Parts: sequence; C-alpha cells; structure tokens
Amino acid sequence: MTTSAASPEYQKYKHFVVSAPSAGVAHVEINRPKKLNAFARDVWLEFGRVFEQLSADADVRAVVLSGAGDKAFTAGLDVVDSSSMFAQEGVSRDVARRAKALRATIEEFQVCVGAMEKCEKPVICVLHGVAFGLAIDIATCADIRICAANTRFSVKEVDIGIAADVGTLARLPKVVGSTSWVKDVCMSAREFSAQEALSVGFVSAVHEDKGKAVEAGLAMAARLSEKSPVAVQGTKELLNYGRDHGTVDSLRYTTIWNSANVQSEDFQKALLSGLKRTKPTFEKL
Amino acid sequence: MTTSAASPEYQKYKHFVVSAPSAGVAHVEINRPKKLNAFARDVWLEFGRVFEQLSADADVRAVVLSGAGDKAFTAGLDVVDSSSMFAQEGVSRDVARRAKALRATIEEFQVCVGAMEKCEKPVICVLHGVAFGLAIDIATCADIRICAANTRFSVKEVDIGIAADVGTLARLPKVVGSTSWVKDVCMSAREFSAQEALSVGFVSAVHEDKGKAVEAGLAMAARLSEKSPVAVQGTKELLNYGRDHGTVDSLRYTTIWNSANVQSEDFQKALLSGLKRTKPTFEKL
Amino acid sequence: MTTSAASPEYQKYKHFVVSAPSAGVAHVEINRPKKLNAFARDVWLEFGRVFEQLSADADVRAVVLSGAGDKAFTAGLDVVDSSSMFAQEGVSRDVARRAKALRATIEEFQVCVGAMEKCEKPVICVLHGVAFGLAIDIATCADIRICAANTRFSVKEVDIGIAADVGTLARLPKVVGSTSWVKDVCMSAREFSAQEALSVGFVSAVHEDKGKAVEAGLAMAARLSEKSPVAVQGTKELLNYGRDHGTVDSLRYTTIWNSANVQSEDFQKALLSGLKRTKPTFEKL
Amino acid sequence: MTTSAASPEYQKYKHFVVSAPSAGVAHVEINRPKKLNAFARDVWLEFGRVFEQLSADADVRAVVLSGAGDKAFTAGLDVVDSSSMFAQEGVSRDVARRAKALRATIEEFQVCVGAMEKCEKPVICVLHGVAFGLAIDIATCADIRICAANTRFSVKEVDIGIAADVGTLARLPKVVGSTSWVKDVCMSAREFSAQEALSVGFVSAVHEDKGKAVEAGLAMAARLSEKSPVAVQGTKELLNYGRDHGTVDSLRYTTIWNSANVQSEDFQKALLSGLKRTKPTFEKL
Amino acid sequence: MTTSAASPEYQKYKHFVVSAPSAGVAHVEINRPKKLNAFARDVWLEFGRVFEQLSADADVRAVVLSGAGDKAFTAGLDVVDSSSMFAQEGVSRDVARRAKALRATIEEFQVCVGAMEKCEKPVICVLHGVAFGLAIDIATCADIRICAANTRFSVKEVDIGIAADVGTLARLPKVVGSTSWVKDVCMSAREFSAQEALSVGFVSAVHEDKGKAVEAGLAMAARLSEKSPVAVQGTKELLNYGRDHGTVDSLRYTTIWNSANVQSEDFQKALLSGLKRTKPTFEKL
Amino acid sequence: MTTSAASPEYQKYKHFVVSAPSAGVAHVEINRPKKLNAFARDVWLEFGRVFEQLSADADVRAVVLSGAGDKAFTAGLDVVDSSSMFAQEGVSRDVARRAKALRATIEEFQVCVGAMEKCEKPVICVLHGVAFGLAIDIATCADIRICAANTRFSVKEVDIGIAADVGTLARLPKVVGSTSWVKDVCMSAREFSAQEALSVGFVSAVHEDKGKAVEAGLAMAARLSEKSPVAVQGTKELLNYGRDHGTVDSLRYTTIWNSANVQSEDFQKALLSGLKRTKPTFEKL
Repeated sequence: MTTSAASPEYQKYKHFVVSAPSAGVAHVEINRPKKLNAFARDVWLEFGRVFEQLSADADVRAVVLSGAGDKAFTAGLDVVDSSSMFAQEGVSRDVARRAKALRATIEEFQVCVGAMEKCEKPVICVLHGVAFGLAIDIATCADIRICAANTRFSVKEVDIGIAADVGTLARLPKVVGSTSWVKDVCMSAREFSAQEALSVGFVSAVHEDKGKAVEAGLAMAARLSEKSPVAVQGTKELLNYGRDHGTVDSLRYTTIWNSANVQSEDFQKALLSGLKRTKPTFEKL
Repeated sequence: MTTSAASPEYQKYKHFVVSAPSAGVAHVEINRPKKLNAFARDVWLEFGRVFEQLSADADVRAVVLSGAGDKAFTAGLDVVDSSSMFAQEGVSRDVARRAKALRATIEEFQVCVGAMEKCEKPVICVLHGVAFGLAIDIATCADIRICAANTRFSVKEVDIGIAADVGTLARLPKVVGSTSWVKDVCMSAREFSAQEALSVGFVSAVHEDKGKAVEAGLAMAARLSEKSPVAVQGTKELLNYGRDHGTVDSLRYTTIWNSANVQSEDFQKALLSGLKRTKPTFEKL
Repeated sequence: MTTSAASPEYQKYKHFVVSAPSAGVAHVEINRPKKLNAFARDVWLEFGRVFEQLSADADVRAVVLSGAGDKAFTAGLDVVDSSSMFAQEGVSRDVARRAKALRATIEEFQVCVGAMEKCEKPVICVLHGVAFGLAIDIATCADIRICAANTRFSVKEVDIGIAADVGTLARLPKVVGSTSWVKDVCMSAREFSAQEALSVGFVSAVHEDKGKAVEAGLAMAARLSEKSPVAVQGTKELLNYGRDHGTVDSLRYTTIWNSANVQSEDFQKALLSGLKRTKPTFEKL
Repeated sequence: MTTSAASPEYQKYKHFVVSAPSAGVAHVEINRPKKLNAFARDVWLEFGRVFEQLSADADVRAVVLSGAGDKAFTAGLDVVDSSSMFAQEGVSRDVARRAKALRATIEEFQVCVGAMEKCEKPVICVLHGVAFGLAIDIATCADIRICAANTRFSVKEVDIGIAADVGTLARLPKVVGSTSWVKDVCMSAREFSAQEALSVGFVSAVHEDKGKAVEAGLAMAARLSEKSPVAVQGTKELLNYGRDHGTVDSLRYTTIWNSANVQSEDFQKALLSGLKRTKPTFEKL
Repeated sequence: MTTSAASPEYQKYKHFVVSAPSAGVAHVEINRPKKLNAFARDVWLEFGRVFEQLSADADVRAVVLSGAGDKAFTAGLDVVDSSSMFAQEGVSRDVARRAKALRATIEEFQVCVGAMEKCEKPVICVLHGVAFGLAIDIATCADIRICAANTRFSVKEVDIGIAADVGTLARLPKVVGSTSWVKDVCMSAREFSAQEALSVGFVSAVHEDKGKAVEAGLAMAARLSEKSPVAVQGTKELLNYGRDHGTVDSLRYTTIWNSANVQSEDFQKALLSGLKRTKPTFEKL
Repeated sequence: MTTSAASPEYQKYKHFVVSAPSAGVAHVEINRPKKLNAFARDVWLEFGRVFEQLSADADVRAVVLSGAGDKAFTAGLDVVDSSSMFAQEGVSRDVARRAKALRATIEEFQVCVGAMEKCEKPVICVLHGVAFGLAIDIATCADIRICAANTRFSVKEVDIGIAADVGTLARLPKVVGSTSWVKDVCMSAREFSAQEALSVGFVSAVHEDKGKAVEAGLAMAARLSEKSPVAVQGTKELLNYGRDHGTVDSLRYTTIWNSANVQSEDFQKALLSGLKRTKPTFEKL
C-alpha cells in the first residue's frame, strides 16, 4: 500500500501542505503561519477541495489535520478579508437582497468546512497554540480531537458581534456532554485550556507539546489505516448518522448499510485472521 | 445603559424579588423562604410572567436566578397545594375527563417553567441548599448552571409516585453526557452533591457558599451584558435549536438566522473594535 | 411481595440463569462461562425471550444482568457460529438475495438485544472481566451501567471487519457525552479500562471486584423495587423518549403519559407517606 | 345540554359575533363587513382570544366560522394598519433589531391564528365571497372546509411582496394532495374558484350560496356535538399529530392517548347504545 | 415458479383462507362471513401470523386480501368480544394499572394489523360490502386499495366512543390528499361510497361487483409477480420510507438501499431483456 | 430587465438549449431528440450545471423545462450508457467496494437532478410525448407540472429491475395525494395518461399539444417574472420546507425567513402599488 497523498496531485494547494507520513495516512497542515493560519475566503475554498480529494482517494485511509508553525492551529477568520466580504460591498442595500447574498456566503463556508465531516475517512484534528473561532467550527467536524498542552481555545464569534455560523452551534451540543459548559464558552467567548477541554470531553487526549500531539495523531492514524477500511469508514458513517437520528431510524439504517458491507471479503478475512492469529491485509476502498 | 429591572414594573410580584445589581443584569430571587421556596400554583404562574417580562424587556441582557434565604433554592412542589390540585377535586370522576383536566394543568405548568428557556436572554441559574424536584426541572431550562458547595440535589418526583413531568425527563438526557448517571438519579430519586453535579457536567462550576455563587453568577451576567446582544441572544437561540435538531437542519437554520443578523451594525462595531483594540458599546435589542 | 423470578417458569432457559435474590428483583446471568459467555444465535434468541418475560411479569420490578464465571461478562459474538451464519451458506449468491437474508439476520439480532431496552423495568448492567463487542451493544441497552475494576472493555467489531450493527453505533453517541472519545474507541477497537469508562460517563460506578459490583447492583435494584412502579417505569419510558425526540415532542408526550398515570393511587399514597413520614407500599404494575 | 356560547361572556368581543345556534354549537362570525372583514392587529388578537375561550369551554363541542355580510369571508390583512406595523416605525433602523421586532410580530400573529388549530373542538370553516390572503391561512387551521359557490380564493401574499407567513406555506402542502397545484396558486397569487377548490380537495363541499353553506356547516356541527366528545376531540388531536409525525411515532402516541381515554364511560355507553340501538348522551368534556 | 400459498402450511388458520390462484400470488380471505368477518382478538392475532408467514415466504410475490361472503369485507371489531377485553375485567381498578394493560392490548392489536404493512410483498386490498371501522385501519396498511361498487365505508370508531387507534388516524392523513375530507369522515363516522372513495383517492379503482373487483386484484397481483421481486419489494420499502421521512433522509436511504440491490442479477437480466425484447424470469427473493 | 439566458454564457451546453423567450424567463430544452432525449452520464452532469447557473443568475426569475423534438420529453436513462456504468466495470468484485462506487454514482445522479429542486427560481416542467423513468424523477423536482394531451407517463424503473433511486420514490408520496395510486404506478411500471395525471394531481393542467403546453408554460413563467422575486422565491423555499417538516418547525422557519425579507423594499413597493393601483417593478434578486 502506497499513499497517494505524497503524489504531485496534492502539491497544487496554496494554503495547505499535504504529506504522506506513512502508508495510508495523509497529514494536512494549514499553511499560513505568518497570519496565524487565519482563513480568508480562498483558504476555506481550498480547505473544501483538499478534503473532497482525500475523501475520494482510495489510497488514503486516515487523515491528520494540524496547523503549520508554533503559534496557532488557526486564529480563525481573517478579519480584514471577512469584514469586506460580509459587508457585501457592491451588493444592493436592500435587506432581502443582502440577506440572499449572505445566505450564499454562509452556505459556501459551511459546505467547505463540512467537507471534513463528509470526508469518508477518519479525521484526527490535532489542536495547538491559538485555536479561536473557526478553529472550533473545524474541530467539531473532525472525528477525534486531541491537543497540545499549550492550546488556547475560544469560541470567539460573540466577540466579533455574531453568533457562530459555520457549525459550532449546530454541532457542539452533540459533541460535548455538558450543555452548561457549552453555553458558558459559546456565550462568553472566554478562553479555555487544554485541561478544561479534556475534562469536559471536547478533546480525548492532551499531549505535552505540539510535536508530541502531532506524533500521537499520526500514530493513531497509522493504526486506523491498518484496519479494514470497510469497517472503519462504516463506523464513521453510522456514528454520524446515530448522532443525528432517533434510535429506531439509526438501527434500520445500520441494517441496510451492513446488508451490503457484511458481504465484503474483509469480514471473512478479519474473522479468519482472528482465529488464526495472523495479521490481515485489506484492499483499499 | 440603565436596567429597567430596577423599575417599579418589577415590584408587582408576590413571590419573586427582581432587582438590578448592574447595568443590563436582572437578578430574580424565588421569595418564599419560609416554605423553602416551594412552588404552589400561583408561584409558577408568576414565574412564567416574570420571565416573559424579562424576555421582552430590551434593557435586560442577562438574568441570574437564585432562591431567597439560606436553606433552599427550592424544595420543589408545594405538596399540600399540589395534592389538592392534582386530585382534581370538583372534576368529573370519569378517567377521560380527569385526564383532560390534568393535561391542561401539566401543560400550564410546563409553559410557565419553560418561559425561562424561551426567555431570549441568557439565564444563569445559581443553585444552593435544598434543590429538589422542581429545582431540577427549572435548572434544566437555564442556560448555565453553577452552584454552592452545600447544594443538595434530587430528582425527587419518583418519591411522590410520579414521573417528573415539568421538563427534567425531556431535557436532562440532552443536558448531561452520561445517561447511566441520568437514569440512576432520576429513577432512584437519590440525593447527589455539588461535586457529583460538577463531575458529570450538570453544573459548570461550584463555589464555596451561596454568597460566592451568587456573586459569581452576577459577575458572569455582567460580562455577558457588555457583549453584543445580537451575538449573545443569537447564540442562545442557535444552541437550543442545535440540541433539538439534526445537523443538516441546524446548519440551514443558522444560515437563515444570520442572513439578517450579520447585517447588524454590531458586527461592524465589534470587528472595528477588535482591530482598533477599543471597547465597543452595543445598543439594546 | 414475592418475586416470580424464583418460579419454575424461569428455569427453562439453557443459556441464562434467572434468580430472585430479593422481593421484586430478578438477577439474570449469562451462563456460558466456558465460552466466555459468547453469544451464538440460540443465545441471543433466548436473551430476547428472557427480557420479554421479565417485561411482562408484574412481580418483577428491577433487573440485574451479569455474566457467570470469573472471566467475562461476555466476549461477544461466538465467532465460529457467526462466521457460518453471516456467510449465509445455502443462500443464493445473488447480492440482493444475500442482502435480504442479512437484513433479516441483523434485524432479528437487534430485536433480541433491544428487548432489554424495551423491557419496562429498570435494568442494571453489571460488567466485569472481558466485555467485548456485543457486551457494549448490550450495555447500551441497559438503563444503568456499573462495573468491576477489572473490566476490559472493547468495541471490538472493527477488528472482525465490520461496523457494529446490534446497537452500539446507534446508541453510544447518546449514552456518552464526548463524541471524540466515542469515535476513538469505536474506530480503533482499542481496549479501555473501568476507570476510563467511569471518567467519560459510560459507567456510573466502579466497584472493587465482580462480587462487590454484583452486590451493589442488587442493592440498587432492591431500592428501586420498593418505589412506586408507576413512577419508576414511567421515568424509564420518558427518559428513553427524551433521548430520541426534540423538547417540544418530549414535553407533549410526557403530558399525555402523566394525564393517565397521575390518576394512580400511587401518587396519593406517596404524597401521604411523605407528609406522614411513613413508608408506602405499592401494588405491582 | 345548553350552550354557553349564548352567554354574556361571549358578548365582549368587538370584531366577532359569537352565537349559539344549537346545543353544543358555537357560531363565530368575523364582524367587520364594511372593511370586507379585513384583519387589523386588534382583530387577530381578539381572534386568538375567541378560540382560546371556546377551547376551554366544556359546553362547546363544535364551532363554525364564517364572515359577516354578503361580500367576504375576509379580504385578508387590513393593508393600511399592517403597512405601518410591519414598517416598524419607532423601531431602530438596525437590521437585527428590526428583525427581532418582526419576529415578535409574526409569531404573535401565528399564535393568534393558530389558536383555531389548537382549539380542542372541531372547527368547520365556511368560506364565501372574497377569501384572500389571510383567509387561506385561517382556513388551513380549520378541521373541515366547506364553501359557497361564489367564493373567490387567492393566496394573495405574493402580490404584496411577501411570502405568506401566518401558516399557509407551512400547512397547505399537507392539506391538499397536489403540490403542483399548491405551488401554482401560492406563487402566482391567482384567484381560484369554489369548484377548483373542491376538485383539488381544499374544501370538501360546495354549497349554492352563503346561506346554504352556513346552514350545512351548522348542521354538521350539530351532528358532531351529539357524539362522544372524548372520541371527537381525541380524533382531532390524533389526526393533527399524524399529519406532522412519522407512522411509528404516531402509533405510539395514539396508544398512550387511548390508554387513558378508553377508560372513559363514553366507550361503555356508546358500545351499549350500539348493541341496544338506543341513542346515547355524553357528558361534556 | 410454484406458489407455496397452496401448501398445507397455510391450511392451519381458523379465520383465514389462504389460496394460491396463480404462480407467486397468495389470496387471503377473512373467513367469518356469519359474523360479517368481524375481528375478535384471536382473529387479529391470526391476521398478524398470516402476514408474517407471507412476508417470509419467498415463493409469494404479491398478496390479495378480501372478505369471505357477499355481505362484508369486515364490519370491524367484534363488539361483544372487545367490550369485555377493553373493560379489562380482572385487572386492577387503578387507572395507571389499567392504562398499562390497555397499552399492551392496543400495541398488540397495532402490531398484528401492521404486519400487513411490514409484509415485504405488495398487498392489494379488495374492499366490498360493509367496510367499517377496522376495515379502514387494515386498508390503510395495504399498498393498493380497490373496491366493489357496493362498498359501504365508515371510520366507525367515533360511534363507539373512541378515537381510532389501530392505525387509521396515524396513516390516513398520508394516504389521502384532502385533510378536509379526512377529518370529515373520521370525526363524523359517516358512511361514504365507493365513488367518493375513488374521487378523493382512497381507492384507485372501483369495479362493478365483488367478483370483478377480486378478479381485477388477482390480475394485478399476477402482473406484479412476474416482475423482478428485487425491484418491486424495494419500491414498496422506499415508498413507505419516503412517506414518513423528509427528502434528504429519503434520498440517502435510497442510495444505501440500492448500493446493494443494483448489484443483483435482476438488473442485468431486465436491462438485457429490454434490449433484446425478450421476457425475463426472476429468481425468488 | 433583460434576460441573461440569452447571453453567450448559456451557449456552452452540449445537450441543452437555453433561450430567453421573454424578460426574466429562461427556457431549457433537453436536446437529444434522436435519442428520445435519453440521459447518459454526461447529460445529467450538464443538467446539474444548467440549473446551478440559472439559480445563481439574478436576471432569471422563472424557468421552463421541456424536451426538444416531437416524440419525447425524455425516455429516461440511456440504457446502453447506464448498463456499463452501473456494471461498474473496472471496480473491484468485492461487494462492499462495488457498493461504495455505486453510492457515489447514485449520489452524483441525485445531486444533478436535485439541482432543479434547489434552483431558487420557480421551475415549470412541461411534459409531452414519452415521459418515462427519469422523466418522473425530474418532474417531481419541478415546482409546477403541466403537460400535453399526448404525454405517455411511466415510472419505468421496476421494468429494468431496480427501485427508482433518483428521487421519484422519495418525493412522489408528497407530490400526489393518493398513495394507492402512487404505489400502483410505481410498482407496476404501467403507463398512465395525461388525463389520469391530471385527475390525481400529478400535473395541474393538460394542454392540447406540445406547442400549446410550452406556450402556456412560458406565459405562466412570464407572469411569475413580473412579481416580486423576494416573494416568489421565498414562497418556493417555504413550501419546500413545509413539505418536509412538521408544522411547529415550519412556522418557526417561516418567522426567521421573513424577519429579514419583510424588511425588503419590495414589500413597501407592492403595498403602495396595491393602494395606488399602479403596476410595481421589482429589482432583481
């Protein structure tokens, strides 16, 4: 198994570095360190394309996302860029016409960030340094969140006068168990630490520094890459479905999903390996 | 900015004291300390009216709720009063006719308590002393829950022979992450401590005593009052929506909501203040 | 109050021992210790029948589930048995026809395991030793989960090449607050300890060893059995409903439910006992 | 059985005449014939109060709604009044602040008109003459719609530059089977006739003129008033629930509803009358 | 292809005659003509078993349901039998305990009647003569409804003092387009004719008499039996799902369903036959 | 107002002719008359792009869709092309891997056809001649359906061995009132005529021949183009939402939507024109 993430097709991005640290693993780095990895419009459009490509690439089985540089995962929206965009210069002054333009902008933004949630491979988000605003929107789209001890988190949107609209408010109540804490951090925009993030379950592990956290994320991704992709990707799909639907609907969907997937040779291979105590190899999916 | 909660319009309540400790903040105290702040029917009818008034009052930007006296937040239902009410004296003995009368009573009760959830301002519930039965129904309608170290919590309803019907069973599974714990305390009616409440995420902070807890609640409310009310109240609305809907629906609702609200001057003001490092002032909403 | 779980009607099961340790309490033990309590098809069919019987038996008011022997709660699916079953030998090779057969098998399995969730009495699941794969599916159907300190948990399905389809993926996101942790353990199939299970809220208590855990479970069941079954069973129903529906729907359902149940004499009895400080006795339900 | 709709309590309305043509029947007439029964804000506030009173009045078992005068059921919104209201004069020019004021206005309007849908008694809407805009919003809240042959219908809102927001667009797709027709009349604001309304199922009967239609409505109401109110009002509740929920949820809700209501004496009475071929009389509900 | 419905396994029913008029077709007749085919408890229990058997029997591809004798499809509930059952003689007088017993009875009844909806084969319901009460509940569970010209329909439940609870109120609003008509017939319990049933879309064809209607039903069933069962049964499943879910969910479910079923050889066979203009034969499913 | 549909940007399509018959109106013709306008993969990809462009083009206010040539609207899938595509040649033989490839194909197809439903302008579908299979999937995505008298309709998919998966089964139960008819035509794949389509409400008008039908469609589109696009497009959005959501959710969504859009100048303009009896002109949206 080689990893296509090392191939030239992934060299075309301006704001992201995509590398292939091990077989089946892709490492995506947000690469605007001088701007604290802030997102202007062309950054999020590219973010969406990166994850669409990774989702469709059968050679990729697990993805790690982190930020380039020492300072930040991302400081969030590039305020200068966004200010002019949301001001909708050139658009009619009529409220309904501006509302329509804003709907299109917000939806485009949601779709790009959501591409990471729709990516059919598991995505491990490694947070570190400044992780403000959009950082939380992005992190809630990941499957697994781990972080460096120095991470400074904030659902920053209230401090720029808006309710977060790229996903934090839609997803966070289902990502973390304590709504009292969720409302506290979302309404106050106060910073919270790696330790607090761990204790409420927002991240599932804290590592000493960025290096160690990225290392842990890559190791976790490598382990997931060795497992049956039919099983791992099915698990992602079904957990996402279960989060959003009642139990009756989720069980039925699971049944239909597995009625095809249990026919895969992966199931027979894995069962056999278990009995023979050998290590199975699974075809790409 | 003055706070109208200090105005005579809030002096009309018999069972609640509403004061204005700082600009934009309203402090509501349940005021039946001799009865451990228990709720008879006229208490909950008034509770609903208090929060409807606060919701509509643009001068109020954040609310703190606590109980008067040292002993209790509230001991729950006023059993003597309720016993006769639920006995539906004077109502036909026919099961269907009594069921209709009970539906009306329960719904009225739910609507009054739910007025706090519908209140468009953030509500911080400060629990202390005895917090039994209805105390939990009320607390689950708040946005943020903090408590004094001496708080004694209990989902008491099972011990009076009924399943809780004013909101605990509908909301608690979405308020706290561990359903094992939720079912334990709801089915056993056992007491749990402030520390246990914190560790499962039911409250997001424990303070030394009632005084410190109220102080902390008021300080938190004051901070929220200084922020853009367009952002804070929108955040409340969208988090409540996100709790109850799937991700696709929540994202769409967020888009429509913000297509109007991002046109507010608060957004431009807050962005500008961020760039200029000045402190913005926001109009009331 | 006697417990019918001691009666001959419960002696008919091959893979389960059902006993009556105290009034109103039934103790169900998975009884294939030599196979680490693994589930072949006839085991899960019987599992469904046991819980249907307990649900319908008015003399039973609370149920404890554990595994026989020292080694395992259950090691999960009986791989030898399942391998041939899911291979659907004798079924047409046509994908659609095999899919239909698989739908029937998976649904049968879900219905049998789900019988524990549908059981109208509270079920306390006491986990210990090996608790792999199906153990988690079963545990998520219980109301309360406690465990012995030596419990080794694993959502094992990915390691046999499939996404879990008997309920873990549908229910776990609503059972535990941290989705980061949920996805970690479901996608990696890694083991986690009793302590980790406690800290994320999957179990609500850890006891020193299996004996102490079972003892604690039985004591908890005994306490629930003394309470009004109208209140306890209604609480189970309404919490399960609340988990799967939005707040508006849940409140309405609660109203309709209680419009009949508040007419029960249990309510009057319990209220009166509260006022008189006597201990009430409740009729079976 | 007398009808309280004849009592002085119903004489207090300024814009509505409420009479009691027969036992158990209330006839509500919109009474602004000179204004073609158009709705200004105080009209719709009163409309809400009329139907809340009828819903709570156990002496009323069925309601007929029609318009006073020969010309119109209602021509819809009172444009002069509404123009200034929606212009939100006196409200801040800030888009978010105006949006909040508009939300409050629209919701108040929806709640008032929706009071007819929430009214627990069957409501027969008799349409005649001009039935524009709000007439359709109101009619979709009724249980049964019949009309005079001269009725001129129009979903008029598009012609005043807005999408209908008092209920037509939320309810009409579930009231009429053909969405092609629904979209045609809603987007074009074109008039349609009584005959067209009948052929698509918007009304279930057309009568020669207003007099005959009102007469038919009153006769239908009188027949419903003689039936068990437990059965009739339960049927209304369950059909409304069935319209808005999936089959699984609707069946469960029906079960819970009837678990109380089948215990009514009405069931025994009606069964017995059926067997004995006598005419039963039912207590008020 | 032979039809197992002709086999001895279908001769065991007391209240139903199951025959095999042509290959793949089963004809079920309700066989209590002297009681106007009324349903006592043992009748509906058997009804459930008949349709479970037909659903599981791969030799059956389409089912026709009609009543034995000239007089009635079914007159509904066997009132004498039901009166004692719903009176719950022998059950505690306590309202909550009776409510629990009633829930069990109603749910059992719903499950038995719903077995026809869950039956994976298309079911054509041929109505004729008296078709009262339960007849409508049953008919709404069928896929296609046709009738004889002499059919007398009535949603009779209101006349026995209850709201219909075996499915009519849950399903009828989704079966027929005009809710005005649905509420009219459900609340008034009035009779409606075959012609009226046709014009509102409750049935899709009216035939001259019972003989012709049954003949038409059998012919329709025979045609469906010759088509690919993968296609026909999938269509049933997906239409039922589409009725109860929003468009986004329905499209996703369709995708998952067909990702297995399009791999069937039926698709290739049917495509090829279309191109070659030959008549394909499909294996049983 | 000019119509950009006449501009060179719309000349780039290979399989579609897009013209601008009048101000604000776009006419889209499926242009493969020699193939009976059948859809191969590149046709549906282009179909999606056409409607995305029309949706984003503020100069277009209403769209008419018809087929080129005398014979067919469309005969459906291009069977030769699709056969090889669904056979997934070159894809692994493993069932799970083929299922994944099929999911991607089906979803791509659904998204392309669904682009017409998502198009924010009203779409009038003019059916004529052969309208088989995919013709119905496409038509259910339109807002208004009208047809020529010679139209031959068929939900053809069952005859090629599959359940329709591009939208017919998800949408048709909500488009037409009679589920008996819907199941009949979907399961039998039988042809139905223009007259039958009209009588069940699938189309809302039948015209003499294709020419007259297209003319009527264009006239209808022209009328819609003169109305406020804020009102017309909002009506489309809210009716689509109402079809898929319960009443409570739909009313709330309507409120939020209109809280921005009622602030538009279109509302004031239209109101004023109504009072002054002048004809308003609305800016593009």
